[in-house]
Amino acid sequence: MTAFSADRSYAESLDAADQLASFRDRFVHPDRDVIYLNGNSLGPLPVRTQARIAEVVDQEWGVGLVRSWDRWIELPGQAGDMIGEHLVGAAAGQVLVCDSVTVNLYKLAWASLDARPGRDVIITDDDNFPTDRYVLEGIAAQRGCELRMLHTDIDSGVSAEALTEALDERTALVTLSHVAYRSGALADMASLTELVHGSGAIMLWDLSHSAGAVPVELDAAGADLAIGCTYKYVNAGPGSPAFVYVRADLQEQLRQPIWGWFGQYEQFAMGPRYRPAPGIDAFLTGTPNIIGTVAVSEGARLLGEAGMYQLRTKSTSLTDYLIALTDFWLEPLGFSLASPRSSARRGAHVTLRHDDAWQIVQRLLTAGVVADYRTPDRLRLGPVPIATSFTEVWEAMDRLREIAASKSYADVPLTSPG
Amino acid sequence: MTAFSADRSYAESLDAADQLASFRDRFVHPDRDVIYLNGNSLGPLPVRTQARIAEVVDQEWGVGLVRSWDRWIELPGQAGDMIGEHLVGAAAGQVLVCDSVTVNLYKLAWASLDARPGRDVIITDDDNFPTDRYVLEGIAAQRGCELRMLHTDIDSGVSAEALTEALDERTALVTLSHVAYRSGALADMASLTELVHGSGAIMLWDLSHSAGAVPVELDAAGADLAIGCTYKYVNAGPGSPAFVYVRADLQEQLRQPIWGWFGQYEQFAMGPRYRPAPGIDAFLTGTPNIIGTVAVSEGARLLGEAGMYQLRTKSTSLTDYLIALTDFWLEPLGFSLASPRSSARRGAHVTLRHDDAWQIVQRLLTAGVVADYRTPDRLRLGPVPIATSFTEVWEAMDRLREIAASKSYADVPLTSPG
Repeated sequence: MTAFSADRSYAESLDAADQLASFRDRFVHPDRDVIYLNGNSLGPLPVRTQARIAEVVDQEWGVGLVRSWDRWIELPGQAGDMIGEHLVGAAAGQVLVCDSVTVNLYKLAWASLDARPGRDVIITDDDNFPTDRYVLEGIAAQRGCELRMLHTDIDSGVSAEALTEALDERTALVTLSHVAYRSGALADMASLTELVHGSGAIMLWDLSHSAGAVPVELDAAGADLAIGCTYKYVNAGPGSPAFVYVRADLQEQLRQPIWGWFGQYEQFAMGPRYRPAPGIDAFLTGTPNIIGTVAVSEGARLLGEAGMYQLRTKSTSLTDYLIALTDFWLEPLGFSLASPRSSARRGAHVTLRHDDAWQIVQRLLTAGVVADYRTPDRLRLGPVPIATSFTEVWEAMDRLREIAASKSYADVPLTSPG
Repeated sequence: MTAFSADRSYAESLDAADQLASFRDRFVHPDRDVIYLNGNSLGPLPVRTQARIAEVVDQEWGVGLVRSWDRWIELPGQAGDMIGEHLVGAAAGQVLVCDSVTVNLYKLAWASLDARPGRDVIITDDDNFPTDRYVLEGIAAQRGCELRMLHTDIDSGVSAEALTEALDERTALVTLSHVAYRSGALADMASLTELVHGSGAIMLWDLSHSAGAVPVELDAAGADLAIGCTYKYVNAGPGSPAFVYVRADLQEQLRQPIWGWFGQYEQFAMGPRYRPAPGIDAFLTGTPNIIGTVAVSEGARLLGEAGMYQLRTKSTSLTDYLIALTDFWLEPLGFSLASPRSSARRGAHVTLRHDDAWQIVQRLLTAGVVADYRTPDRLRLGPVPIATSFTEVWEAMDRLREIAASKSYADVPLTSPG
């Protein structure tokens, strides 16, 4: 590999050396001229998932009808084990695919408070993803707890110092995102978990921007609980079901509050009283969404085939390259990096700050580059580790610098959601 | 129409006179020899839904990617309005498609208790669907309430007398199924709602076995709240998202407990505190499942095209005919009717009692008739009003009598879930 150059030929040389390049063909791609840098929001469609969904609809539902429940009934646990094995470092029987991130956080946070009687503080950070903050705010209101918000630098993530200062003997639960949704800052899971355990509290990780983006080792980190979404880097489609991780030894101690028939011991006996199923199944609620769960399995399988550590190497190469082009081309045009510079402290996306971020994102879209905006002045660029090429990053950054240099975005109406 | 006869030709004459017969072609059918009488469990696949799912996957997700959220974001309300208009008699802005029946019941039951401070009793019936009983049992445990169980005749459903006796000034919430899952007994929504209102409590209807099966008029009945599933008679596929109805004037009074980002006012401003969205949107939680929600829209649209009152006429003809064949053929073979005999008091399925129900259902399956078993000794036959023919009912009943008469089920292992 030659030294960095801003020429397109350099990107081409990186692609030529990319051992995962062939995985690009395992995805459906949008129109030729579109460059998709929004894997952090909705991942692309794997070709095999497209075929599996058609098979589930046409054959399993259309022809098999209710008889297919014989195979569907085990899917939440099977898809969970795929995520456990390939993406988040969890031994079998600890992960389920079900519900949404929002509902799963509610279930686990509620159960955690019950498991720490006498403690009445929940900690999260003020830059955590909105649904996390809102769910915890709701639970705190319902249970008369204090929700303690760590103040976070929105470019660099939660600090161990801030967490240490906030933890005390009243703390029941800490919920943090492993990769911050805005900056992409990557938290040190093992050391923060240890800190939280030191105070006797339960640690719940939100892996929504981690699963499929960075290798996660929940078991090795001594994590208690985790939740995460599958429509971003697991590539399971819009609103696909989320996952929960409950460490094996906690499964009997924690009792989630939504007592549904899929969490019931001997479900089809339909007995008079609720009795939780053994193991992780007690964290199920209602009837699982089958098409979505199949897509999660396929997404996790494909990432496992590439290998999360190999994908991580490619991902940091993509984002290091993107940052190098930012320094070279964009810094003089009013952009600054709003993500950690060190790849060891960063997830799979890169955030840039610019005064006109909203307008630039809209203009980029008309130029065929799909990125996204986040309040207050951030532009997120999320290459898909398993599917984006270095040449695509070069091309997107080239269009971005052209737009910024020419100020061709100036006539985009200022209707930002912020 | 000639008088009832047990000859196949009579079924053929009913089919010839069926004005909805052509809707049968709007569905994918299983193998030629299979007769599907389990619409009460999982509805069949509409041809148009099959095409729409492929379109959503291939085009909206595969090509449109995150850009398709512009159209997806409104789907939960749009699909809800389709259900409101075509199936459950609710004016626009009162129904949402989201989450599961289990999670939706949790949300609405919790909110109802908050709306009736000082009242600490929840009433349901001991033959309500398991997930309803379990969710309410959980909420009662969490909130220190009493869960009062009406004793119900499992063949005939909840009686007004039993409800009247149970209601008192401590009652905050009553939750009943409009059509009982086991017997198919149909409750009188308007009169029971009025009874409950008389005590100052909130009435929550579970429409899981009603929506798409019998015409429902929520607004006209003065109903407060409802939930329901869409994978049965709405034909939206395995584990498709459920729906909630919250009467317009209650939407600001009730606050559901799971505060997610889709229920947030100005969601993409991602503000620091949760503030519920106006109207029905406050009852959303996390990111909605898009493929499932599209299937709900299509299912509701198709039923609307046939018309729920027309479908009801066909449905009662199908089940009256099924009961007539039961009387004629099966009663001498040890079967008895375990559903209300009057079609005015019955939903869209018929339940039969037989000592060997479990074995008979298994044997029927190998004979190509898909029905289902419910504890303790019930066989459920659920013709799909929009897709099942009278000849299919005849054929299924003919196979059933053959199996019962020959006792060819005797070697089926006794591994019932009950």
